[in-house]
Amino acid sequence: TSYRSTMEDPWQKAYDFAVTVARKAGEVIRKAGESEIKVSTKSSTVDLVTKTDERVEKIIIGSLKEEFGEGTHCFIGEESVAKGEPCILTHKPTWIIDPVDGTTNFVHGFPFVAVSIAFAVNKQLEFGVIYSCLEDKMYKARNGKGAYCDDELIQVSDVKDINKSIIISEHGTDRSPEKVKKIFSTMQKILCIPVHGLRGSGTAATNMCLVATGAVEAFFEIGIHCWDIAAGAVIVKEAGGVLLDVDGGPFDLMSRRMVSANNEVIARRIIKEIEIFSAERDDAPIQKK
Amino acid sequence: TSYRSTMEDPWQKAYDFAVTVARKAGEVIRKAGESEIKVSTKSSTVDLVTKTDERVEKIIIGSLKEEFGEGTHCFIGEESVAKGEPCILTHKPTWIIDPVDGTTNFVHGFPFVAVSIAFAVNKQLEFGVIYSCLEDKMYKARNGKGAYCDDELIQVSDVKDINKSIIISEHGTDRSPEKVKKIFSTMQKILCIPVHGLRGSGTAATNMCLVATGAVEAFFEIGIHCWDIAAGAVIVKEAGGVLLDVDGGPFDLMSRRMVSANNEVIARRIIKEIEIFSAERDDAPIQKK
Repeated sequence: TSYRSTMEDPWQKAYDFAVTVARKAGEVIRKAGESEIKVSTKSSTVDLVTKTDERVEKIIIGSLKEEFGEGTHCFIGEESVAKGEPCILTHKPTWIIDPVDGTTNFVHGFPFVAVSIAFAVNKQLEFGVIYSCLEDKMYKARNGKGAYCDDELIQVSDVKDINKSIIISEHGTDRSPEKVKKIFSTMQKILCIPVHGLRGSGTAATNMCLVATGAVEAFFEIGIHCWDIAAGAVIVKEAGGVLLDVDGGPFDLMSRRMVSANNEVIARRIIKEIEIFSAERDDAPIQKK
Repeated sequence: TSYRSTMEDPWQKAYDFAVTVARKAGEVIRKAGESEIKVSTKSSTVDLVTKTDERVEKIIIGSLKEEFGEGTHCFIGEESVAKGEPCILTHKPTWIIDPVDGTTNFVHGFPFVAVSIAFAVNKQLEFGVIYSCLEDKMYKARNGKGAYCDDELIQVSDVKDINKSIIISEHGTDRSPEKVKKIFSTMQKILCIPVHGLRGSGTAATNMCLVATGAVEAFFEIGIHCWDIAAGAVIVKEAGGVLLDVDGGPFDLMSRRMVSANNEVIARRIIKEIEIFSAERDDAPIQKK
């Protein structure tokens, strides 16, 4: 089944509602951070983050279900998937949600923590909303209608010379020696192209917004999940940027690999240096169940 | 000669003035960024930054000289030293200034750009002011009187377990293979202790403020200059943190090596992993002149 609407602008209401929900979720995170951060340094930080993540995801999905009905829309949320819900993108209208992107930052009070909400129909991303809640910046983009930070149109950098670029990547949370070695080797080779510098904010969603505003030329990572990058993908594309697989092929939302850049010249130059390691697809069949 | 004052609180006026000057300088940087960032991507970015750096340093030193007199105070400013002025810390009241810390960030519009102003008397740092001008956050500390962000008292993290820490470092601007190799090797070893994560904001001054607020546990770097870290050193110390040399010895402002951390346990654990490389002291005699 292919889902279409006869209305001229079928998803405007959903888009507007996503912005409202993202802001509400961000407010909850900010408040949770004020009291819980102190507790987290005395106990297991991972438990604490999970609690806030879960709570915020429930608020977001609850609000969306209330607004759009339980049965018509599907939901892929980081915490729901962690609890065994499916992570399959179908043709149905689907919300892809990361309630707290940058969980480590959240625990530490590091200033980049984002709510990421994307919406796909017929397997195509229709819009993305990222609320960087500690900075109080609302990034948003609809397919074909430009990207915005708050109400200002944003645009990727026009740098084509790799030697004048800043590149963002992350070390991730997998500390297996083979992967860590490849991550550092890739970063070292990129630094020595040379580029102006390397950065890392600790959240994929914010990193993609930094590409979209032109603060950096590219962000790449292997190991990210669809909820980390779905909203950012729309925002980067609508800001004039490009998305590719780390092997130079087309971007695949469920592949856990991505290069987002201001243009294809920069993207392909970065790709030349990336040492690829394996990451199981988000939509891989669950085995031995 | 040892400089003392008979007043009870001799440097309060200088401290208050430094805050005013830092804010004024930050406003100039913000405005310069709005128009010049676009130009910089079309021409040599290095020239452009130098112009803004120079202009802002002149504004800062000019204001300080006008307020405190030409002859009584000394000045160590990044741009003045670049032009051949001496970089020697004497017993005289001395201002140590970085007009734009995070020059690469400034050019790219990456959100961390800081004005750093410190004041030393009898070779001891009396106060430090760091204005993170794109975030509009004013960090400041006076010796013995606590550290503040805007008007809120700030404090380092109470994490003692290295496995629950975030560590900041930078890759620097020196791309000689031996140094780059040691920098990446150190970062890889620290990541695999393991720690929660590695970050990099692109400015030493901001990195030290992130230590002071507790957002990260430690920041270390070899190759930084006294103007990058003088103000931050007071802010970290007054927020309850510690400063050490990368070899575990006492912190030396002019040595171009530093570990700043929330406590000595974290600092010494990091130090175990640091691969030291040489960096000529800031106060090294100028040779072959």
